[in-house]
Amino acid sequence: MALPSKLGIVAGGGTLPEKLLEFCDSRNIETFTIGFENQTDPRILEGRAHMMTRIGAAGSIIKILKDKSYQDLVLIGSIRRPHLSEMRPDLYTAAFFAKLGLRALGDDNLLKAVHGALAQEGFTLHGIHELMQDLLMPEGILGRAKPSKAHQADIDAGFGIAKAIGALDIGQSIVIQDGIVLGVEGVEGTDELIRRCAEYRRTRDGGILVKTCKPEQDRKIDMPTIGPQTIALCASLGYSGVAVEAASALMVDMQQSIQMADESKLFLIGVRAPARQAADE
Amino acid sequence: MALPSKLGIVAGGGTLPEKLLEFCDSRNIETFTIGFENQTDPRILEGRAHMMTRIGAAGSIIKILKDKSYQDLVLIGSIRRPHLSEMRPDLYTAAFFAKLGLRALGDDNLLKAVHGALAQEGFTLHGIHELMQDLLMPEGILGRAKPSKAHQADIDAGFGIAKAIGALDIGQSIVIQDGIVLGVEGVEGTDELIRRCAEYRRTRDGGILVKTCKPEQDRKIDMPTIGPQTIALCASLGYSGVAVEAASALMVDMQQSIQMADESKLFLIGVRAPARQAADE
Repeated sequence: MALPSKLGIVAGGGTLPEKLLEFCDSRNIETFTIGFENQTDPRILEGRAHMMTRIGAAGSIIKILKDKSYQDLVLIGSIRRPHLSEMRPDLYTAAFFAKLGLRALGDDNLLKAVHGALAQEGFTLHGIHELMQDLLMPEGILGRAKPSKAHQADIDAGFGIAKAIGALDIGQSIVIQDGIVLGVEGVEGTDELIRRCAEYRRTRDGGILVKTCKPEQDRKIDMPTIGPQTIALCASLGYSGVAVEAASALMVDMQQSIQMADESKLFLIGVRAPARQAADE
Repeated sequence: MALPSKLGIVAGGGTLPEKLLEFCDSRNIETFTIGFENQTDPRILEGRAHMMTRIGAAGSIIKILKDKSYQDLVLIGSIRRPHLSEMRPDLYTAAFFAKLGLRALGDDNLLKAVHGALAQEGFTLHGIHELMQDLLMPEGILGRAKPSKAHQADIDAGFGIAKAIGALDIGQSIVIQDGIVLGVEGVEGTDELIRRCAEYRRTRDGGILVKTCKPEQDRKIDMPTIGPQTIALCASLGYSGVAVEAASALMVDMQQSIQMADESKLFLIGVRAPARQAADE
């Protein structure tokens, strides 16, 4: 896509918002960032046009972005489930949630609903991968370690299972060893999945983390992300490898991630989903 | 089914083998029990015709059951994954695993394979529920506590998800709260799922355990089982309820289970799978 000249950034936690801001700086894209209390690192907003607010302030977020003529938006970074007290919804937000029913609060549906509401307000939403294509997980083996034939069988089986779990809108990650699914990600997050599955292994070491992407329509909202922290955790617990869906997941700090994998002889592989491959070509 | 006059029992751990032995005593069914070292409670075999052996002794198990003219068999009780040293396979077992490939060792496929091998040797295999129909989870609310409308929505959603997870041959149980799947059972077992999901709740209390059965063909081998221990665990962690697939899961010590649920105001409900209902009627 052609890069926009102005970009509104609705920023959660993690390191991705800062990377996007640096990218925009380097391309002379004017930005206005909405940060959230207790979610967004305030340090990255210093010296930049921004508003720090609470999750429940959808009305003022929409107003300020419109007033400042920001048409293109990216929602980026992790949003931890807000406590109700952090929401303190404004009128717009309250009306929005009243329409949704309160059940949507705090889960994936909330993100989808926010996305839909912004689109309805006339904003154009972009996935970060549309702007920063370097962030996309490449296909193939990235480091020096290579999966064995048995590992490859686990990757293949695990990939299908992780996709099916993702389609159920539960999690996107599983841990597999010797054909046995040790664990499936629920709300605990990938790091906790990695930690607990280390306890369930039949052998002291081994196991593969398989992380895939949810269906296409969710990719602008919540792309699975992997980076040095996850690789380091897998390595410290003796995992054999990490397999991530190519072209559909984000890989932050790729060089550092690969270096960490290499140091622990852990393989790192981007796997292309067959269905998506067919659809793309 | 008509009860057999003689029944071979291949017994794992847990309380079900003893209940089956007591049932056979009460119906004057002659039994011969195969117990496994480190798996079967040796106390229940005292004073009864039995052989205590190791998992890897398939050859001698088949021989003794044939020599004693036991035609009808039940495989019952939990089998913890054996360590390789506990296997010490005899010739028959070694040939069996050589045919299977070692990948089958210790997971669900092992149970299926053992089942298939015994059937091929001419034995007739029965599910315990075919003999002891009282063990089957009944349909409907069992105790005094009733699920709210919101709980019912979680049960419905959770049931579909647990079924889908079961179809992938991963686990059979999930924990759900307010429409969000907190956790999915992998190899850790239901109790560990219950414990960890208690940490992931947004509110201090609540959450529903949903336990379903794998597809029909697996029901003779490995039926999901629930009993006072699981109910007590859910109650102690403040869960709202337990929903179990009716007519397809086993409920041991039903009166005690219901009493425990009542004391903690936890609901206990048997849910009939729509597809199976149609197939049965």
